[in-house]
Amino acid sequence: MPDYPSRTQRILSRIEQLAAISEDPDGTTVTRTFGTPAFVRGRDLVQSWFEAAGLKVHLDGIGNLRGRWASQRPGAKTFVLASHIDTVVNAGKYDGPLGVIMALNLVESLMEQGSTLPFNLELIAFSDEEGVRFHTTYLGSKVVTGAFDPATLLRTDAQGITLAQAIADMGGNAAQLATDALPPTEWLGYFELHIEQGPVLWESGVPVALVTALAGQQRVELTWQGMAGHAGTVPMAMRQDALAAAAEFILAAEAFALHHGQRLVATVGQLRIPYSASNVIPGQVVHSLDLRSPDAGQLATAYADLQARAEAIATRRDVALDWQLIQATAPVTCDPELNRLLGQAIAASGHEVVGLVSGAGHDAVPISAVAPATMAFIRCYKGISHNPLENVEPADVAAALEVAEGFLHRLITAHS
Amino acid sequence: MPDYPSRTQRILSRIEQLAAISEDPDGTTVTRTFGTPAFVRGRDLVQSWFEAAGLKVHLDGIGNLRGRWASQRPGAKTFVLASHIDTVVNAGKYDGPLGVIMALNLVESLMEQGSTLPFNLELIAFSDEEGVRFHTTYLGSKVVTGAFDPATLLRTDAQGITLAQAIADMGGNAAQLATDALPPTEWLGYFELHIEQGPVLWESGVPVALVTALAGQQRVELTWQGMAGHAGTVPMAMRQDALAAAAEFILAAEAFALHHGQRLVATVGQLRIPYSASNVIPGQVVHSLDLRSPDAGQLATAYADLQARAEAIATRRDVALDWQLIQATAPVTCDPELNRLLGQAIAASGHEVVGLVSGAGHDAVPISAVAPATMAFIRCYKGISHNPLENVEPADVAAALEVAEGFLHRLITAHS
Repeated sequence: MPDYPSRTQRILSRIEQLAAISEDPDGTTVTRTFGTPAFVRGRDLVQSWFEAAGLKVHLDGIGNLRGRWASQRPGAKTFVLASHIDTVVNAGKYDGPLGVIMALNLVESLMEQGSTLPFNLELIAFSDEEGVRFHTTYLGSKVVTGAFDPATLLRTDAQGITLAQAIADMGGNAAQLATDALPPTEWLGYFELHIEQGPVLWESGVPVALVTALAGQQRVELTWQGMAGHAGTVPMAMRQDALAAAAEFILAAEAFALHHGQRLVATVGQLRIPYSASNVIPGQVVHSLDLRSPDAGQLATAYADLQARAEAIATRRDVALDWQLIQATAPVTCDPELNRLLGQAIAASGHEVVGLVSGAGHDAVPISAVAPATMAFIRCYKGISHNPLENVEPADVAAALEVAEGFLHRLITAHS
Repeated sequence: MPDYPSRTQRILSRIEQLAAISEDPDGTTVTRTFGTPAFVRGRDLVQSWFEAAGLKVHLDGIGNLRGRWASQRPGAKTFVLASHIDTVVNAGKYDGPLGVIMALNLVESLMEQGSTLPFNLELIAFSDEEGVRFHTTYLGSKVVTGAFDPATLLRTDAQGITLAQAIADMGGNAAQLATDALPPTEWLGYFELHIEQGPVLWESGVPVALVTALAGQQRVELTWQGMAGHAGTVPMAMRQDALAAAAEFILAAEAFALHHGQRLVATVGQLRIPYSASNVIPGQVVHSLDLRSPDAGQLATAYADLQARAEAIATRRDVALDWQLIQATAPVTCDPELNRLLGQAIAASGHEVVGLVSGAGHDAVPISAVAPATMAFIRCYKGISHNPLENVEPADVAAALEVAEGFLHRLITAHS
């Protein structure tokens, strides 16, 4: 009987060691964005663990840490276990690193058990999933799938450093990126463990769930252009208040999502009033809209409906509206066969089999374009993530470890 | 027949000369906040005009420029003509200076006509009405009325300079401030010409109006504390979105003011979301509320009603609300007898007699506590002020000049 609790202690000890490495000079918060010295020190630590486990390790051009355990079988395909080790600013300790460190523990355990692999296992710590530094999506996994767009190399960070330069600065090689992809024919599949980053498991009391789909996302920037004016001298009926227009839209988006089922979410997260003052009627308001659903049809309907509502508000209030689609990602359905094995493992561990939609994006999104992919979500404290309060119960890590090990055993059996 | 158009040209030429003096190093925008070198240079120019007119000039402790034309009559009281020569940042040319320069022109004209005064005339260019540098209200006129609070001397500007130091730096004398007030028994009254700073005259096609009242104001800061969360992973029904709560309040305040008559205005001018991101549900929102009415009862009712609505929104949405009253100013009614004379002068000049409520604050607010006071508003381009686009038609300046001269003649007759 594997000792999941003591393996969990080892995993959580490594979480703490990695979390102690941060861009923050006083070390009280966790920040390791792509390519920074703190990121490289953190990756060095994880690399030392990969090497100690006996994996064949290399860094690819975008700085992904890749550890390979080759099958003896000729022509074997490759199954990838991965998550990311970059973080947002002022992050939690678990978002990303938990998946990498648990996957390493699973590989160590399979090796100790003397397992024979019918496929190659590749363990990857992606260098950039959060996209904070260059406002990108999935730099690491896009290189591994061959979807990396070379134009991205010209993007600059807040200091004006290009991605190409950042890659060079960390000893990577932008010219080599195209050769870092696993060929489509070599992929067997993809599995990632990750904290849920939402409150559903916390509320339902279930430690681990399989992911059935990842929501598609539309990100829009709305600019309302009204007329600035003195807060004391322009009568209410003569105003073209850009903030009042935005407020009406914010409530319309909330109401639409509330009344269109559990799976659609709409969020206005950022809003700014250029040149604002308490005694000036807002002349311009710029805000975001983040729209997500696992159902492509629902997402398209919601997008069109909310754009029409915004235009109606603008017309009625005599303000101008600029509606800019910033980013669009199609929904992804996780692989049914992988999920069948994962569901068996969850049930065998004695847990209710819960399927969740991921509202957050993950590396499984680009990977699903080239390979069967799925994920397991681990319950986290109140669903909080991207925050120092992010936390995971050791018992839940142990439960997820048992489930993931059961899944890998089933996968090995299925391909033996 | 006085030549108002050519006097208007002289006035507008002086407006341009004064507007050319700015803190802005390249001189493309007008900024002369209290006590700055540009402010002092601007005041020096106006002082030279006061002196050339033959006024007895002195600078008081807070830096007001005061020019006196004494009556020969023993025990004569003093009538004050004034406006301010400080500006906001990136200001227009007319807000303040137009009233000072027109008043000077009126005094010059009365002198040329060989008028005999039954009261002293004091022409004042207030040093601080906008309150930009020290976030104060009416520094200049409060010294003249004796309402200056010495505690204000300890306030600091953005560079950490105290008001006391700023007064010393411009050659003023904080110790002398109490002696700079006109004694209450000496006041006969107060009249100020000012641009409307609102669109009512622009829309109605009337060049000049009398002011019946100045609105009272309540300034509130609201802080909504909900729960931040991931925009993709927290279902709509589980959210405590601080921005959605704020949006509901913004619309409630707008609707309340719209449905409670022409005289109440409610404005949310500033709003910020600390630590915002497009993919994070806003956990906290802080915004202003500016509430104005010339009717003290209406203002109190609106304040109480909106606070109750805010609390109801907070309760229903399970977010916390902090409601902080930042500033409260009572409404002021302009003097009926002065307005009777002003109305006669407007009618005699052939204009419709329009009475406006000032939604903006003016020096007439503190002065009305010690003396009969009124104002005349001059139509300005689209009601725009506090903006480089601020503009006034020469014909409207000429019309207002004729009205103000008629008013002063009637005032002189009434007291002769």
